[in-house]
Amino acid sequence: MSDVFVDPSVTPVAAPTVTPTVTTGPITGSTKTYRELHHPGIDAPLRVPFRRVNLTDGDHLDLYDTSGPYTDPDAVIDLDKGLPHRPGVVRDRGTQLQRARAGEITAEMAFIAEREGVSPELVRSEVARGRAVIPANHNHPESEPMIIGKAFGVKVNANIGNSAVTSSIAEEVDKMVWATRWGADTIMDLSTGRDIHLTREWILRNSPVPVGTVPMYQALEKVKGDPTALSWDVYRDTVIEQCEQGVDYMTVHAGVLLRHIPLTVDRVTGIVSRGGSIMAAWCLAHHTESFLYTHFEELCEIFARYDVTFSLGDGLRPGSIADANDAAQFAELRTLGELTTIAKSHGVQVMIEGPGHVPMHKIVENVRLEEELCEEAPFYTLGPLATDIAPAYDHITSAIGAAIIAQAGTAMLCYVTPKEHLGLPNRQDVKDGVIAYKIAAHSADLAKGHPRAQQRDDALSKARFEFRWHDQFALSLDPDTAREFHDETLPAEPAKTAHFCSMCGPKFCSMRITADLKDSIRDAMDQKSAEFAEHGNRVYLPLTS
Amino acid sequence: MSDVFVDPSVTPVAAPTVTPTVTTGPITGSTKTYRELHHPGIDAPLRVPFRRVNLTDGDHLDLYDTSGPYTDPDAVIDLDKGLPHRPGVVRDRGTQLQRARAGEITAEMAFIAEREGVSPELVRSEVARGRAVIPANHNHPESEPMIIGKAFGVKVNANIGNSAVTSSIAEEVDKMVWATRWGADTIMDLSTGRDIHLTREWILRNSPVPVGTVPMYQALEKVKGDPTALSWDVYRDTVIEQCEQGVDYMTVHAGVLLRHIPLTVDRVTGIVSRGGSIMAAWCLAHHTESFLYTHFEELCEIFARYDVTFSLGDGLRPGSIADANDAAQFAELRTLGELTTIAKSHGVQVMIEGPGHVPMHKIVENVRLEEELCEEAPFYTLGPLATDIAPAYDHITSAIGAAIIAQAGTAMLCYVTPKEHLGLPNRQDVKDGVIAYKIAAHSADLAKGHPRAQQRDDALSKARFEFRWHDQFALSLDPDTAREFHDETLPAEPAKTAHFCSMCGPKFCSMRITADLKDSIRDAMDQKSAEFAEHGNRVYLPLTS
Repeated sequence: MSDVFVDPSVTPVAAPTVTPTVTTGPITGSTKTYRELHHPGIDAPLRVPFRRVNLTDGDHLDLYDTSGPYTDPDAVIDLDKGLPHRPGVVRDRGTQLQRARAGEITAEMAFIAEREGVSPELVRSEVARGRAVIPANHNHPESEPMIIGKAFGVKVNANIGNSAVTSSIAEEVDKMVWATRWGADTIMDLSTGRDIHLTREWILRNSPVPVGTVPMYQALEKVKGDPTALSWDVYRDTVIEQCEQGVDYMTVHAGVLLRHIPLTVDRVTGIVSRGGSIMAAWCLAHHTESFLYTHFEELCEIFARYDVTFSLGDGLRPGSIADANDAAQFAELRTLGELTTIAKSHGVQVMIEGPGHVPMHKIVENVRLEEELCEEAPFYTLGPLATDIAPAYDHITSAIGAAIIAQAGTAMLCYVTPKEHLGLPNRQDVKDGVIAYKIAAHSADLAKGHPRAQQRDDALSKARFEFRWHDQFALSLDPDTAREFHDETLPAEPAKTAHFCSMCGPKFCSMRITADLKDSIRDAMDQKSAEFAEHGNRVYLPLTS
Repeated sequence: MSDVFVDPSVTPVAAPTVTPTVTTGPITGSTKTYRELHHPGIDAPLRVPFRRVNLTDGDHLDLYDTSGPYTDPDAVIDLDKGLPHRPGVVRDRGTQLQRARAGEITAEMAFIAEREGVSPELVRSEVARGRAVIPANHNHPESEPMIIGKAFGVKVNANIGNSAVTSSIAEEVDKMVWATRWGADTIMDLSTGRDIHLTREWILRNSPVPVGTVPMYQALEKVKGDPTALSWDVYRDTVIEQCEQGVDYMTVHAGVLLRHIPLTVDRVTGIVSRGGSIMAAWCLAHHTESFLYTHFEELCEIFARYDVTFSLGDGLRPGSIADANDAAQFAELRTLGELTTIAKSHGVQVMIEGPGHVPMHKIVENVRLEEELCEEAPFYTLGPLATDIAPAYDHITSAIGAAIIAQAGTAMLCYVTPKEHLGLPNRQDVKDGVIAYKIAAHSADLAKGHPRAQQRDDALSKARFEFRWHDQFALSLDPDTAREFHDETLPAEPAKTAHFCSMCGPKFCSMRITADLKDSIRDAMDQKSAEFAEHGNRVYLPLTS
């Protein structure tokens, strides 16, 4: 294989000089705005960010904004220093879950309520009940508070991180900023290549959104990639290292038990979770139960100290349509339910990871079972992909599954990029993945009747119908590409107010014809109603054959 | 506006010299194969085409193939002459519906049964019942028979055709071949620009799939784009011209009645169907009922002579989330139900067009109502788009809706390309639209339990798990792009058998770890079972804390 690949993680390299450059400046057609909140006991106001779309008819629409200071032209961005700290971070009163149970509305909850357009009490009660989580490590004050729970907007996570084959710290920092620009609500740094600690440090210090990790990946690097050489000590030390750095949530595959492994043996695609396959290898090699399971309470104690949220990993998720909803998958889910109860007894916040590859008719069962077995802890699913047959288009195969599972109650969707199964996503793949998932999440918000969701659809459709092309672009998920596509055939500025586009041309534009019609219809109705009166108010019958 | 656009349809131009070039040759990793059928009364065998994926493990999988002779390296392609005629076309025994009712299994039905992997009797009975249609104008013998109905694989239509702003005959012929290469089951030529007749002639003579049109577009051109100048005579003559040419199905917006128009007046996006808005303009201008409605029986007589299938258009479909499932839409659907009964009494095949823009929770109602009101005639929907907020990504917003509506029983999906709402699709947009819709259709086939659907997912996933990269590419909807994405980071040939890709690198590849594990699991199970016996068959308890 040496002509294909040299593994840099085992090849000594000098400490890298990191000089990332990231995309800054407002999203086309929008400006950054903040609503200021005063919270008891905090001097500085909480500044809740929104993306304000300024419309040409004088109106505006404020949208949920994940992009942090990078889209604020007034913000000073210094990647070496990292983002400024938010006010109101409290380290000595336990987790958001514990404080919610005690009836406290934290600064984070107040911020989130304003951001989501709901009452602070709804935020508190959902967190107290364990049906929502606020991933906010005390050591990550750069992050803007956000909530993951079915009562709120559906969230999107973007996975970034290098592999041993490709990418650098600068590229990954750029991807992080780029992903949040397009709407990623959280980031997972899944680096498995070189400089794992340093990559994460750069991401955490500059991320305006919560950051998740899978600590197992770094632990495995520490034992030079040999799963059988892992131990609880190495893993625990890695977790503490990451807690100290400020990781907000961690995927822990503690539900992969020795007794579950034989259930995977006749699967078409075995175990497709990296963490799951590593733990299965360890369990079998040592012929003993997973140390993640046997040491789970110690893990809870560590997480509680920093308010790190569990993302209980689905190490046995199906990796193909054939393996969906099978005994292995649901056996693990049952174990995740037990672990949820333990974590919550320690006051630790919990969400549950879900599949994977699932045909449409088997998707809803996943949500129902997760809610039943895991005390309604927020469900956080990877897709699922509704078919296996479209590598290079798995952002689409999975956006279908993601929309359906989110409608059924999934709180956060982990994106899938077009590179899934084929290679490490680049910058363009990250954007394509985020946009596809914002579509899925927003479609689900509409279907769930989220109070703010349809405002944006209505504003965009109104702009479309009134041929306010600039407004239509500005209100869209990706104004730049929408405009670029339009301009491919009609680039001149007057076409931005023209009553047609190149799809139908001027004579066949239904919107133009209908807009012209609207007045005629009203006139006709007025006339008919005058005639109706004139003819003695007899019921009008249309002329039909 | 003159600096933006000069309308070529009103600018005299010389008759064009047309020299299209189209894409030929097999799909990467596949060969063309035929199964020969002998049908009573026909000398030449029916040759039913399949795309054979030849796997490196010696196995193969035959897939439904819409690409016609263009992917057969042994076929002689002469675009000036057109494709060869299929055997068995009968002009003097009425429509497929009439023959099915009479108990006849036509050559087309036999061909379709082989193609779909079902019994000829199922094909006949579904056609007889009106729950499936075989669009096959007697004058389009170049087309390979196919069926549209909920008991069969979900089909995909690709819209092509020029507009007054852009494109040429050569480009549109190329798009037709290109769309069928990627899996389009039918083509609609929606040209509204110059040379409408000639464009259609080139497409019909070279199309291996049924061709649909909206005759209103050409009729409108004949009256120089003024809807109020339309008449039944102009429309009828246009329909007959197109029937003679061989158009297989025609969209007729005969359900837009005078009394429906006021129902659209308070909509966010009014009337967004081109045909619908044209007819509404005509009805209002003349203050009389639609001539499509008043002359519907004459239209049926014409269609019956050629076996042209009605695609009853949804001229009042919603153009935005706000307008979904409203009074105008469902009033028209009720009228389409009446027209279905009339058409079928004339022995004419019917399908019903559906929306449009519909949020996920309102999608299924569309199918139930269509089936109830329209005698279960095949439903043929445009998307629907599950949200309005993503222009430039409407192939994705609508693939979500399309998958859901197809699972609920829609028989054919009309694709939406990334250019929807923005401009005329180019070659790349056509491919992106077709692939997104093949994903939606296949996802629905899986969810409906179509007998052959999961074979392909299983074969691909098995290839993936066994690191047969070439097989994984060959089995995918788009082998070229899948390979290109993989090769972006690992281009060397040995990487095509490597047990990892650049996404995770060699040490973190779950598939590699699991494949290594599989043997250990079996060994461990054997060992455990030996131990179990050794220890007197006591029940095994896992070591848990």
